[in-house]
Amino acid sequence: MRSLLLSRRDLDFLLYEWLDVESLTKRERYAEHSRDTFDAALELSEQVAAERFAPHRKRGDQHEPQFDGERVQIIPEVKAALDVLAGTGIVAAGMDESVGGMQLPAVVAQACFLWLHAANVGTAAYPFLTIANANLLLAHGSPEQVDTFVRPMLEGRFFGTMCLSEPQAGSSLADVTTRAEPRGDGTYRLFGNKMWISGGEHDLSENIVHLVLAKIPGGPPGVKGISLFIVPRVLVDADGSPGERNDIALAGLNHKMGYRGTVNTLLNFGEGRYTPGGEPGAVGYLVGEPHRGLAYMFHMMNEARVGVGAGATALGYAGYLHALDYARTRPQGRPASAKDPSAPQVPIIEHADVKRMLLAAKSYVEGGLALNLYCGRLLDEEKTAESPAGRERAHLLLDVLTPIAKSWPSQWCLAANDLAIQVHGGYGYTREYDVEQLYRDNRLNPIHEGTHGIHGLDLLGRKVSMDGGAGLRLLLKTIGATVSRAAEAGGAAAEHAAALDLAVTRIGQVTAALWGAGDVDATLANASIYLEAVGHVVVAWLWLEQELAAGDRAGDFYDGKRAAARFFFRYELPRTGPQFALLESVDRTTLDMRDGWF
Amino acid sequence: MRSLLLSRRDLDFLLYEWLDVESLTKRERYAEHSRDTFDAALELSEQVAAERFAPHRKRGDQHEPQFDGERVQIIPEVKAALDVLAGTGIVAAGMDESVGGMQLPAVVAQACFLWLHAANVGTAAYPFLTIANANLLLAHGSPEQVDTFVRPMLEGRFFGTMCLSEPQAGSSLADVTTRAEPRGDGTYRLFGNKMWISGGEHDLSENIVHLVLAKIPGGPPGVKGISLFIVPRVLVDADGSPGERNDIALAGLNHKMGYRGTVNTLLNFGEGRYTPGGEPGAVGYLVGEPHRGLAYMFHMMNEARVGVGAGATALGYAGYLHALDYARTRPQGRPASAKDPSAPQVPIIEHADVKRMLLAAKSYVEGGLALNLYCGRLLDEEKTAESPAGRERAHLLLDVLTPIAKSWPSQWCLAANDLAIQVHGGYGYTREYDVEQLYRDNRLNPIHEGTHGIHGLDLLGRKVSMDGGAGLRLLLKTIGATVSRAAEAGGAAAEHAAALDLAVTRIGQVTAALWGAGDVDATLANASIYLEAVGHVVVAWLWLEQELAAGDRAGDFYDGKRAAARFFFRYELPRTGPQFALLESVDRTTLDMRDGWF
Repeated sequence: MRSLLLSRRDLDFLLYEWLDVESLTKRERYAEHSRDTFDAALELSEQVAAERFAPHRKRGDQHEPQFDGERVQIIPEVKAALDVLAGTGIVAAGMDESVGGMQLPAVVAQACFLWLHAANVGTAAYPFLTIANANLLLAHGSPEQVDTFVRPMLEGRFFGTMCLSEPQAGSSLADVTTRAEPRGDGTYRLFGNKMWISGGEHDLSENIVHLVLAKIPGGPPGVKGISLFIVPRVLVDADGSPGERNDIALAGLNHKMGYRGTVNTLLNFGEGRYTPGGEPGAVGYLVGEPHRGLAYMFHMMNEARVGVGAGATALGYAGYLHALDYARTRPQGRPASAKDPSAPQVPIIEHADVKRMLLAAKSYVEGGLALNLYCGRLLDEEKTAESPAGRERAHLLLDVLTPIAKSWPSQWCLAANDLAIQVHGGYGYTREYDVEQLYRDNRLNPIHEGTHGIHGLDLLGRKVSMDGGAGLRLLLKTIGATVSRAAEAGGAAAEHAAALDLAVTRIGQVTAALWGAGDVDATLANASIYLEAVGHVVVAWLWLEQELAAGDRAGDFYDGKRAAARFFFRYELPRTGPQFALLESVDRTTLDMRDGWF
Repeated sequence: MRSLLLSRRDLDFLLYEWLDVESLTKRERYAEHSRDTFDAALELSEQVAAERFAPHRKRGDQHEPQFDGERVQIIPEVKAALDVLAGTGIVAAGMDESVGGMQLPAVVAQACFLWLHAANVGTAAYPFLTIANANLLLAHGSPEQVDTFVRPMLEGRFFGTMCLSEPQAGSSLADVTTRAEPRGDGTYRLFGNKMWISGGEHDLSENIVHLVLAKIPGGPPGVKGISLFIVPRVLVDADGSPGERNDIALAGLNHKMGYRGTVNTLLNFGEGRYTPGGEPGAVGYLVGEPHRGLAYMFHMMNEARVGVGAGATALGYAGYLHALDYARTRPQGRPASAKDPSAPQVPIIEHADVKRMLLAAKSYVEGGLALNLYCGRLLDEEKTAESPAGRERAHLLLDVLTPIAKSWPSQWCLAANDLAIQVHGGYGYTREYDVEQLYRDNRLNPIHEGTHGIHGLDLLGRKVSMDGGAGLRLLLKTIGATVSRAAEAGGAAAEHAAALDLAVTRIGQVTAALWGAGDVDATLANASIYLEAVGHVVVAWLWLEQELAAGDRAGDFYDGKRAAARFFFRYELPRTGPQFALLESVDRTTLDMRDGWF
């Protein structure tokens, strides 16, 4: 089977030869597991992805969900695929056995999910939103809420959504205006409009469990007054059977550039379309304490954001493999030094510029994958490391890496999709091939779950300064340990270690210069560039890690890893030089720009 | 009228305040013209673009041409717009009065066309292909061919195409296999398949004049055996009236990522669908001499490639203006230093990161426009400079600049479209807004008329080494003259001049190192990076030119030019540092990469 989705060989290398995921089976939580059970889950995921998800990727794009005035129509292949997926248990791969999960390590669960992303993000979004929703309720919901809503989600009978944004409140959640009025009986009635709700309305499942951010009147202003509610599409009776329709009305569908298979909606809560219990408003159930809604969301945010980055990587990876396949089979032209125009044409993979594009794409997608799985491994450490210090260390490192794990693949694995189009030439620009859709699908990732700019502010404005800079120090120290090992290894790795060591020094200097500027607006003005530069250093580090893991083992696969590491250090890491110089100067060009000058 | 297509103020600045286009009216060819006639043509173009082309841009994308088995169906707005355009004479803006043209300077004609590109490339492609076709025939066709085919094209009755590629011969035109058999009566019969033919079949015009590259049996192999033929869809009788249907069959439509309004076809010539004159083959008429077809094509290539770059700029420009408009009107969030969450939200243009994206886009699209118009001005110098030396100088400079004029806007004005999506956030990702289509439309430009990689080889492999390096020397000397003027001007311009001077020195050093490598494959391995680095230096130069043209004049417009110049020198030119270092090392990473290692 040549699925052109991900490389299982690469996954095995990263999981087993680099991250030593097998050692997790020594931990109590994963004691029932073994490499065999990990492999079985990975194989099952690949199979479902290749056989059930990938075949309708193009059709899902060409026939996006339509609202006929009554129902949202979705091509039947989506439900068929999701029903098969529900039967596999993959949705609950990382969850506790007590709720019916496989209790796999987060890093393995993430690798499983990657196959579905690579195969068909439009269809995969429904279960992934459901997983995020379920994880949040497992962490913060009451036992009754878990029984009523989470269990059916894990069985594949209910699907979940996340309702954060509103038309006037996208990046700025402080400005959410949906209000939740207490009814005195422990329930609330919600009124407001929610925008960009993926999976917000459909007939794919018996019910849709909306998690809704809203403000209880009288609470504090801004983000501190936001609470979190469960608002089901259909009310659930005490025995779990479906009751009345809740007052959630579909106000419109958004028609997107890509990711078209996922229905994206504008929902009106409490507009009066339905009157459950004869009263106005959408019935909602508070999750946890009032006014702590955003904190609960953020608690799950690292995982969600690492997941977005993983999705971006998967799409980039699929694009890269498609381009590679095309480059190996498309004859066109002759070497630059060839003289005979009647000699046979060569496959384009023999042209240096095509190799450059493919190597760049390889370095991006395999670098992105290493970053995602490294963060997945940290999630496991955060949860199961033997010492509290180990768990704290993982938490801190994950916190500082999260904006990078979300944003770097969203930028560079998208760049891999762009290169995949370019490798295909005119064919890549047509919808007869797959790569333009993969690009369009991936273009969402730098926007949702916090835009690129938001993550720049998160990294520079919060993550590197929190705890007196402890997170950044830990990251730089961790990179430094790799530098030391590589310096001892000698050869190309030592050469790369020297370059990485300089870059680490630069991060320290530049961060100090930025935070020494004494003007927070100036410090943060180029936060996106800081995010990009630090991200490139982090991925260079992970390439050095991979180079060390490959060591001097023989074989094409390891030669490829060494070549891609070399590429990243020669072609990519040097990009950070001018970025650090700009940052260090605390440049005010953008700050000083005025509206009228545009 | 707020058309959000291009800035007329910017066009006026570049044409009149910088390029002194008015002085061209002193030349005999343009003696009938004045700034008034230039302005009238520009205004007419803007009006047709805004009123006739832009309104169906989205509809043309959503309802792309369909083949119903009999006819290619195109939405009626396209023909309506093209009929209006035909009545304006803009199609023949740059052509001789003797053939009914306006005989405007090339630079002014190009500025006129920009409006149509910015408004609707899908519709504009039909006349632009016709113009390219007509220009080629005016240069190389016989008087009879001009009368029979060109005049009806300029009247808007016939449309033209360019039939170069074949399924097995895209970038590698040496491998064209369409054959043209002489009939002994001066006509030929053509047999073969042509791929990617824009405007290849439709009912928008009375006839379609295909210009077809084909090989006459017995000719030399490779590109030296290619001849050029006129192959009309419908044969034309001696009196100009339509005759028999020629044997050109539509074999399929390509469905593209963008540029959807333009029908793109696979055409079979001489497959036997029709038998004109009762004989097999598509009737073709040789243009000029046998075996010189590619030379004729290349003769027109500078103009065509500058035109592609101009189209890319126009799309980027429109995206930038849409993003600017959105950023000024979308309230979201508060300044980084703001503390009160209940203060009103600010328009996003007040956020530094949004200003950074807009400034970047401004520096790309205004830089691209300066590059396009500078090249347009060179076309005029090439044609009308008073001394032969002046004409030769313009020709040489244009030759070396052409790959950059094609590729730089295709890369960076596309980047402006990407930024325009990002500025819009989630809205930019929807088809309810315009920016995602502008991105998709523009994504073609790095592919057609020679891919990015082909232009890298053209620049480094041919243009900078031809005539013993005369073209590159001339370019660097021309940039050097600007450096001198800016150094004298002092202030920010002098600071920028110093940076540019270093970059110019680097181009010389790096080019010498590359050509001193003694291994043509190694020299050319990173030609695309060479193209990008030299391109950025060239645009930095043109920003310095604009800064000098702005001088110390007061007003928002000039402040904006100075700010964008500063941005380009601080944020953009430094990217070339690592590129030059990599090139200078004659890195072999990509060359040494093996197929099996991927």
